[in-house]
Amino acid sequence: MPAKLKVAVLGATGYSGMELTRILLRHPRVDRPVLLRRAESHLSKDAKGGAPSESGNGHLNLADIFPALSGNGSYPLEPLAWPVLKQKGVDLLFLATPHEVSRSLVPEAVANGMRVVDLSGAWRLKQEQHRAIYKFKDEDAATAAELTEKAVYGLPELNGDKIPSAKVIANPGCYATTVILGLAPLLKAGLADKDKGIIADSKSGVSGAGKEPTARTHFVSVADNLSAYGVFTHRHLGEIAEQLQITSDEITFTPHLLPIPRGILSTIYVHLKHKTQAAEIESVYRDFYKSKRFVRVFQTPKLPEIQFSLNTNYCDLGFCLAPDGQRLVIVSCEDNLIKGAAGQAVQNMNLMFGLNEEEGLL
Amino acid sequence: MPAKLKVAVLGATGYSGMELTRILLRHPRVDRPVLLRRAESHLSKDAKGGAPSESGNGHLNLADIFPALSGNGSYPLEPLAWPVLKQKGVDLLFLATPHEVSRSLVPEAVANGMRVVDLSGAWRLKQEQHRAIYKFKDEDAATAAELTEKAVYGLPELNGDKIPSAKVIANPGCYATTVILGLAPLLKAGLADKDKGIIADSKSGVSGAGKEPTARTHFVSVADNLSAYGVFTHRHLGEIAEQLQITSDEITFTPHLLPIPRGILSTIYVHLKHKTQAAEIESVYRDFYKSKRFVRVFQTPKLPEIQFSLNTNYCDLGFCLAPDGQRLVIVSCEDNLIKGAAGQAVQNMNLMFGLNEEEGLL
Amino acid sequence: MPAKLKVAVLGATGYSGMELTRILLRHPRVDRPVLLRRAESHLSKDAKGGAPSESGNGHLNLADIFPALSGNGSYPLEPLAWPVLKQKGVDLLFLATPHEVSRSLVPEAVANGMRVVDLSGAWRLKQEQHRAIYKFKDEDAATAAELTEKAVYGLPELNGDKIPSAKVIANPGCYATTVILGLAPLLKAGLADKDKGIIADSKSGVSGAGKEPTARTHFVSVADNLSAYGVFTHRHLGEIAEQLQITSDEITFTPHLLPIPRGILSTIYVHLKHKTQAAEIESVYRDFYKSKRFVRVFQTPKLPEIQFSLNTNYCDLGFCLAPDGQRLVIVSCEDNLIKGAAGQAVQNMNLMFGLNEEEGLL
Amino acid sequence: MPAKLKVAVLGATGYSGMELTRILLRHPRVDRPVLLRRAESHLSKDAKGGAPSESGNGHLNLADIFPALSGNGSYPLEPLAWPVLKQKGVDLLFLATPHEVSRSLVPEAVANGMRVVDLSGAWRLKQEQHRAIYKFKDEDAATAAELTEKAVYGLPELNGDKIPSAKVIANPGCYATTVILGLAPLLKAGLADKDKGIIADSKSGVSGAGKEPTARTHFVSVADNLSAYGVFTHRHLGEIAEQLQITSDEITFTPHLLPIPRGILSTIYVHLKHKTQAAEIESVYRDFYKSKRFVRVFQTPKLPEIQFSLNTNYCDLGFCLAPDGQRLVIVSCEDNLIKGAAGQAVQNMNLMFGLNEEEGLL
Repeated sequence: MPAKLKVAVLGATGYSGMELTRILLRHPRVDRPVLLRRAESHLSKDAKGGAPSESGNGHLNLADIFPALSGNGSYPLEPLAWPVLKQKGVDLLFLATPHEVSRSLVPEAVANGMRVVDLSGAWRLKQEQHRAIYKFKDEDAATAAELTEKAVYGLPELNGDKIPSAKVIANPGCYATTVILGLAPLLKAGLADKDKGIIADSKSGVSGAGKEPTARTHFVSVADNLSAYGVFTHRHLGEIAEQLQITSDEITFTPHLLPIPRGILSTIYVHLKHKTQAAEIESVYRDFYKSKRFVRVFQTPKLPEIQFSLNTNYCDLGFCLAPDGQRLVIVSCEDNLIKGAAGQAVQNMNLMFGLNEEEGLL
Repeated sequence: MPAKLKVAVLGATGYSGMELTRILLRHPRVDRPVLLRRAESHLSKDAKGGAPSESGNGHLNLADIFPALSGNGSYPLEPLAWPVLKQKGVDLLFLATPHEVSRSLVPEAVANGMRVVDLSGAWRLKQEQHRAIYKFKDEDAATAAELTEKAVYGLPELNGDKIPSAKVIANPGCYATTVILGLAPLLKAGLADKDKGIIADSKSGVSGAGKEPTARTHFVSVADNLSAYGVFTHRHLGEIAEQLQITSDEITFTPHLLPIPRGILSTIYVHLKHKTQAAEIESVYRDFYKSKRFVRVFQTPKLPEIQFSLNTNYCDLGFCLAPDGQRLVIVSCEDNLIKGAAGQAVQNMNLMFGLNEEEGLL
Repeated sequence: MPAKLKVAVLGATGYSGMELTRILLRHPRVDRPVLLRRAESHLSKDAKGGAPSESGNGHLNLADIFPALSGNGSYPLEPLAWPVLKQKGVDLLFLATPHEVSRSLVPEAVANGMRVVDLSGAWRLKQEQHRAIYKFKDEDAATAAELTEKAVYGLPELNGDKIPSAKVIANPGCYATTVILGLAPLLKAGLADKDKGIIADSKSGVSGAGKEPTARTHFVSVADNLSAYGVFTHRHLGEIAEQLQITSDEITFTPHLLPIPRGILSTIYVHLKHKTQAAEIESVYRDFYKSKRFVRVFQTPKLPEIQFSLNTNYCDLGFCLAPDGQRLVIVSCEDNLIKGAAGQAVQNMNLMFGLNEEEGLL
Repeated sequence: MPAKLKVAVLGATGYSGMELTRILLRHPRVDRPVLLRRAESHLSKDAKGGAPSESGNGHLNLADIFPALSGNGSYPLEPLAWPVLKQKGVDLLFLATPHEVSRSLVPEAVANGMRVVDLSGAWRLKQEQHRAIYKFKDEDAATAAELTEKAVYGLPELNGDKIPSAKVIANPGCYATTVILGLAPLLKAGLADKDKGIIADSKSGVSGAGKEPTARTHFVSVADNLSAYGVFTHRHLGEIAEQLQITSDEITFTPHLLPIPRGILSTIYVHLKHKTQAAEIESVYRDFYKSKRFVRVFQTPKLPEIQFSLNTNYCDLGFCLAPDGQRLVIVSCEDNLIKGAAGQAVQNMNLMFGLNEEEGLL
């Protein structure tokens, strides 16, 4: 049996990082992951990812933050130091960090010879118009531009050919994964009438909003409630447009905050150019995803629900065609922390290192 | 002080009927309502409305079914008998019954000189194409046709002029209320480009699915979940189309089941004919609803959330305009059991009997 | 009709204060309440009650914080100033403030001739051993001691005779209300074997933890969870012991955090001195509460549930007796924001001013 | 590598059976399980376990019932037939069936040479006084008595020595597992003062109530609620008493229904005979469970919460000692479908067949 992969995780104290750690701990082809924390100077920026309750002496144990991990030993977090990572022979660094942290760390990582899977939005966007919303301040603009160009958008079902050789994987956004996978076959087949506008009405569980306690994530604010937010302004709009090769005016994307811990359902509305049969639609989807392990196309009239994909790496797709044969409703579901984040990151890792795509993910 | 209204409620054992009873018990201008149950022969059909756990001797107390009512006395349900209702001088009969029951009882009630507010879908639709989905089997087709014609769709913000003199009020559907109120001003102003299709993506709490226990309403099926259902086929589509005077091909309506007990949020997508300013949109809505007590138009960029309207008779409206000035997202919220059912029924009652529209509803 | 009461509320931006405001706005015998905010210097201490998102110019509108209030007009908060309150003829000041704020404001209020209902724990405890946990630092110890002595524990079912003439009402804690009302009849009747220890296992919705966002109140931490906290150390233990005239060693009180927004259920375990019949227990409870409007004694074997008392001012009691006739389980439920806070405060107000005890509360 | 185990599951359409199937499908030492359904004549009795929506021709696919299973192939259910099971070389039969079904099937299975893990309550009780509540009607009383005697109560942490050779494992009840594991060390150490009574106040998620839709499991009945039930009468009381070797008068057990899909927290109250130190208590628990893989003893003052054990096979224990050193509160948590059912069943299987106790369970 070949040697196991050596990987490190920075940001295991956030929801995605924790889920990633949980998956990696069970992965049969990966050594126990090195869990990293940022050097002291960075700690204050860390709030978005969930500030760890670090003890005074710098010891930090992941099991203190996620007691569900307890009982399988100790999980100390050690400070990020490139020489140490190299000495340990780390093959791959996962960044589950805020985007501005990822934006500054990835060039360092690459300079130190690491391959990286970045779960933030830092390296997902090729077009300046979409990237502007993040307000990145790159210290070395030339390197940043080069890495922006080289980084591969890690959606294996679309970019599977570029992932194996990628140095930097920009792991897709959670919402974006459901919308892109829901629309890609249809757009590729040229069936959608984009002039009439595409609508993606998405609903996400609260873990998508991060671990930081805010008025918006307070239990009493979320329970017994539903709210729309970020209409026309959500950051995932850019990556959806880029990956689907449409403009951000051709799609309207509305996120909503659901009173559940995790899971996303996107209801997607498309006008078709011509009157079409349901069977034709279904075969377009089945053909597109026929060799894709982690997309499940439901048989009409069955529609996916959030529960079906929870705790799995699947993106589930189903659809309904209007009686007029020209309006299509696509329902796309996933677990936002798995296919929408940590699971997809591991799927990318598997492809980068020639492992079975589904290893550790079933 | 004038004499109080005398009203009766059939179906108080269901969610809407219970909420209605609760409102009526507090209403300062209404006598304690007569609570009715159907004669024995009808009991077997009652499941949809929540079968009462009737004791063998025919005594049934609403407080046994809804213990929250306890402590304010006893709430016996008495069998529906027209002579008794007439003798008691009942002015108005509320029907919170399954649509097929309402379809057969309303003609009887009218023949017995009663005015009726029917909370079911039995009398809402004027067009046969929309009504077909209910598969009504009218015993007296001529009377049914006549009543269908005369029944007033009880949305006070649209049909306020016809309600005072109506004999039969068809109280609107819960989803329909949010969608119609969200779209009416825009369509009346001629701003919407209907050719590009209108989308109403609606999400409802579980009380909308009725009190009957089913696999779909089991707690474990609903919690931590979200699901779409009835896409292109939901019964409320017809009343939305009729009231907005559009065809059912011009609007796509998708209901979803939310993991909350009550409340609806509809996210509505409209293309505008021309590039428009947000201020113009806002003034269209404010003008339309300026004297309407129970519609609250939120100031951009604030959007309503389900919580804001819970336990109130408000329908809350807010909107976002795309940077291109041509795509509009409207968010419409209500408590499905109040503005979407019982509260609106009482609002109709107030208008029918010349009371203050808001009496008993604040 | 006599003039309406004039009242003021400080702390309307917290959960209890908001609920109080909502009740007062509907109360037929109370003028529209004066809504207060603390002078600037106090604002930093305000976090526990939910820091208001105050606009720069000092204008603060309650409807901005609780949009559910919108549509009934504007709700400006004005700075607390005693001369202004006197000039407005305010009869009663409600304090829905953190306990240290109440501890310092009540002496000022009394010195200014105000009567006060304080919803915090500041003035509930007579015994120094119980009060120690609050670590009060009284500026004027003598006055504080005097007020501590004079303040009436505002549980109308126990202290109804002292409330009408009270200057300062210490409104009971939410948990304490359920436990005291659940046990008082039994202890008074001398049926309980205190040597074997009394257990109160209480479960509360999240609004009881206050509006401040913390890791503990984050939706993802609470949903799909249950946790015990404050075992043997919760502040309500003292008031339970004092009101029941037992020691804090004779009762074990364990609070738990429930994944619901509001409501408390306490399961209380008592050993009886002698083998007893259920009918005797029931009559002890019925006698004790026979003229008490807001306690509902359920008939064996029916037990109250949290839902039954939500949005009401009731405390619901039920019980089960063991086959051995010597072990009793009492279930006590309430809405923590109403009977456990704002509703009880209004009930106290009604008694203080000679109104009907239930006015505005049904 | 040795041959994999061959197992069959009857009742995979219920919650526990489904969870069991999910675990077995991932178990590295078990062949793909044979999924069984009962012969036609039994189908009507099946309701409690969740009636499958069987197609007319008798084909039934588990993925139709639990779509989360989809994408990993097809899961046909085949009719139970002993000769077929023998021919397939099935080593072990899991029964996730109602107790009356298990009561009649286990003798058949044993007669056919099968070993059985039964997840129901059918074979858990040795004492007639406790068993009476189930009202079993054994066809062959002598065989039933013999099997009752021989069946091993499958709590590995207590009966680990008898499990390897057992023919029939009576898998423990979900509530019972938390209570027994929470109390066993203390009782064995002789620290508890049983005369003062032990209290187990337990709270369970709704999956514990089974998959059948009832008024009690309707989402609207459970959400925003908490209720106690089965006080002094719950079936698990008998197995708790038997395993702890106490009488059912020495312990008061109160189950509650929590508004969450899964998980149990039991708060257990014990009087100690003598004033004791927390360190002594902790060492009693640590010693008792020192080699037990699936019990985690939390370090004082940390207490387990339901979330920590969800989706794991752990039972988590923590405790608080009163200042008087004589009252102990123990908190015991588990996932009711895993350590409380399916996971424990697999743990038993591992021990029965000489596998690593934790195989397939981490």
